[in-house]
This record gives sequence, C-alpha cells and structure tokens, in this order.
Amino acid sequence: MAGKLGIVAGGGRLPQLLIDSCLETGRDFFVLALKGQADPQIVEKAPHEWVRIGAAGRGFAILREQGIEELVMAGRVRRPSLMDLRPDIRAVTFFARLGLKGVGDDGLLRALIRELEEEGYRVVGIDELLPALRAEEGVLGGRRPDEQAEADIARGKAVLSALARVDVGQAVVVQQGIVLGVEAVEGTDALLQRCGPLKRDGPGGVLVKLSKQGQETRVDMPTVGPDTVRQAANARLRGIAVEAGATIVVDADELVEAADRAGLFVIGVTQDT
Amino acid sequence: MAGKLGIVAGGGRLPQLLIDSCLETGRDFFVLALKGQADPQIVEKAPHEWVRIGAAGRGFAILREQGIEELVMAGRVRRPSLMDLRPDIRAVTFFARLGLKGVGDDGLLRALIRELEEEGYRVVGIDELLPALRAEEGVLGGRRPDEQAEADIARGKAVLSALARVDVGQAVVVQQGIVLGVEAVEGTDALLQRCGPLKRDGPGGVLVKLSKQGQETRVDMPTVGPDTVRQAANARLRGIAVEAGATIVVDADELVEAADRAGLFVIGVTQDT
Repeated sequence: MAGKLGIVAGGGRLPQLLIDSCLETGRDFFVLALKGQADPQIVEKAPHEWVRIGAAGRGFAILREQGIEELVMAGRVRRPSLMDLRPDIRAVTFFARLGLKGVGDDGLLRALIRELEEEGYRVVGIDELLPALRAEEGVLGGRRPDEQAEADIARGKAVLSALARVDVGQAVVVQQGIVLGVEAVEGTDALLQRCGPLKRDGPGGVLVKLSKQGQETRVDMPTVGPDTVRQAANARLRGIAVEAGATIVVDADELVEAADRAGLFVIGVTQDT
Repeated sequence: MAGKLGIVAGGGRLPQLLIDSCLETGRDFFVLALKGQADPQIVEKAPHEWVRIGAAGRGFAILREQGIEELVMAGRVRRPSLMDLRPDIRAVTFFARLGLKGVGDDGLLRALIRELEEEGYRVVGIDELLPALRAEEGVLGGRRPDEQAEADIARGKAVLSALARVDVGQAVVVQQGIVLGVEAVEGTDALLQRCGPLKRDGPGGVLVKLSKQGQETRVDMPTVGPDTVRQAANARLRGIAVEAGATIVVDADELVEAADRAGLFVIGVTQDT
C-alpha cells in the first residue's frame, strides 16, 4: 500500500475528488491548502493546514511533521504577484538557485518537482491516482464533429504542434481553417472569451487543447470541465477536442450534460507524431 | 511615367500619405474610398468616390471609367459582417468561384489580387510607391534593447517563425523568455491590450512584429505608428521590434518622439532564415 499522501490543493473541484478517493480506499492523507487558492468548503472537512505559496519552509515542515511520502498537486493555481508571494528563506533560496532569467512556467514547475524529489518525496500526477479522470479517445456525449469540424481539429493540431516546438501554447480556437486565437499565458478562459466576438459568419469554431510535448503533466495537466463547455458555448463554438490520455476531465457527467444541452461535441483525440 | 493610380482607401493616415505623394510628383490619381473605413476628412479633399466593400461591380466600373492602370490598397480595413457586406453580383461571383471553405485572410487577398490582375490592373504595394516608409534595420530613436530584450526579440522571432510555417501570426509579446501573448486574427491592438495585465514582475516585455513568410505584403504589410508605441507603453512593454524592409512606419517622427518620451526602443530586425 502506498504511503501517506500529501495533497497540495489549489482551486476548483479536483482536490475534492482526491479526498473522496482517499476516504473510499482508506488511504492516509493530509491536505496542504494553498491560501487564496483552495476552496475552504472542500479542504476544511479534511485533515489540512493552510499555507502561503511563498512559505516553502513551512510547507516542507508540514510534509515532515505529517510523515508524508507521496505528493500530488491538484487544482488551479493563480500565479501570485511578487507582493503576495512574500517568499520565506526556503523559497528565496529556491528562486536564487534557479535564477529567474528566462525560466518559463514549465521550467519553474520542473525545478520545484526536482527540489521535492531531492528531499525524498515522490511526486505523482493526479491522473495516476485517479486514472478514471483521463480523457479517452472518441466522443463524449451525443454530438460528433462533422467534416468541417474535423478539418478545424486537424488544423488546430498542426498549429499546436508547431508551437510546442518553441514551448508555447496548449490551446487554439479554429473556425473554418482560420485560427481565431492562440493561448499563451492568459489561460483557456481568456482565450474563449476573446474568441466570441471574433467569430466569423457560418459554422462556429472548435477549441483544440493538447498537452505540450515534454510538458510537466504531473503538476500541470490540461483540464476541462462543465465550465469549459459553458464558456465554449458562450463563444459560439461547435465543439472541443482534447488530448486522449493527457487531459483531466472533471465532472464528466455534468460536462456531457452541458455539452448535449448546448449542442457541442467533446472529443478525445491523439496528437500527430 | 506610371499611369493613373487608383488608391483604395481604408482607415488611418496611409491614404493621406499616398495622396500627398501624388500631388507632389504630379501623378494622376483617383481615390476609391471604402465606406465605413476611410476617413472623410482625408479622401474628400481629393478626387474620390465612396464604395461599399461588397459593391465589387461598382468598384470595377469606377476603375474603368477613371482609366486607372495601377492600384494600391492603403489603410486599415475592418472586416465587415456578412450583413454589412451585402455583396453585389460581381462580389457574389467572386466569392462563389473562390469557395468559402477554409480560405484564410491571406488566401482571400491573394484571390482578390489575382482577380484584379486578370482584369488587367497592376497591383502594387504601398512600400513600392513610398519606399521611405519602409522600416530600416537598426534602432529608431534614442533607446536600444539591452541583453534581456535582445533575448526576448530572438525568442519572439523563433516563435513567429514556427507559427509562419502553419500560416498563423504576425506578432507576439515576450517578457523574460515567456510568451505573454500570440496574435491570431484579433490584431496587434487587442494583443497589446490583453498583455498589460499579464505582465510579470521585473523588466517588461517586447512586441515582436514580423511579416509571415509568403504573406501577401502588397495589400497587408505590417504597419506601426505612434499609436502602436502608445499602446505598447500602456502595456508596460520596453520596446518594439519590427521587420526591416517589410514593415510600414507611419509618422516616423511622431513615433520616435512617443517612443523616446515613454522610454521605449523601436528596432528594425531581420528574420532568421
């Protein structure tokens, strides 16, 4: 049986799903709830302690005190400003060692995992603990893409593949072959919001969301849920294509219901190699 | 001496510069002012007629009546909705022949030029008529990029080069190696607007704006002006890199003044090959 699990909890419902799973299987766990990020209603029903993102020293102390062996990071983390970060000595040392110049998000996360592993913790992806949340290949729900939508998905895959080579982008919106928007650091919500008014006449576009090849999916796996569907519907898209095996689907039942109601398809696809 | 010039006028100051140049050199010209796009104050002082974008038949008739031999398209054109377009028979025939499926902006413009050329008109780029507006290599104004900014420019060039291979993107904003935003169809103004709030701590980012390799620059050449500088300053960028030889600089004096006042660099760079 795996040792005690530390759940580093950000926003959204994912921490809840992990807590439920631990309670069901009887696995010992402890929640490190990130201040300003995790949902109090979720974490306060479980054994937990609140920590600031900048308080790395305190975080490491909790891991030790609690005898944690394995770590999983779950949920959205909004990047704090340097003001809010107020790094403690442990965090400052980490950043200083890293050097700040030119480290992208992925580089930062990779360094954080390395740091944790050097301290003897095992870091696992949420999809390892909850494999049922992984998107499968094929359609979810009642709709499937037509010929134009298939062409838009193929175009989106090609664009993301080109972008992955320069370490940018996880999502694009494509309508009738035209790339309406490319996601950089602003996030999928912001991408969908701005693509609504950019819609051209005729059949709407498709959101294509893939992992970057080489992306550190243990802490930053693409995630979709009912909200993604609602936002895509607001942007008058016709569907969503995610990467089978490399996307977390939160609340799949509710997502399918929302998609069917809005007339959107949701499909798991594979990356071109 | 070149024959009579038809100036298809969109928004902004570029049509004015062409009119001035014709008046100075004594070249015969006529303005086709695009309704809802061209500035009445500019075109109404010159020989002109207003035409709707959808009224292709009327446009061709004017070209014939006026004995125009050479055509230049100048100024911003906001894409009309299909409602506003109200294509006449000539325009409908054009679109029908083209087929609408999967034709990007560039494909559309290329087809339009082909159509004009088949009718015997010569279509020239604005930079051919006003070569002095072409950005040159090197800095404009008093500032130059430091080492970090040079690195960000190089990163931006690499990202745009990857994107050009899939026919997307003319501009990116890069800060400390992180790509804050990628321009798709929303335009540089919208890109700059959203990148302001995305700024990370530390030295600000750089706008890198290049032509797509293979882009139809005769009708769609990247353009910068004083407004670009003001918007970049609002987004707290440190500078702008444009493509030498393939960018139109409007009102260079005012642009330099705005850049110097805001402490931004503006530099003409070459694409990697």
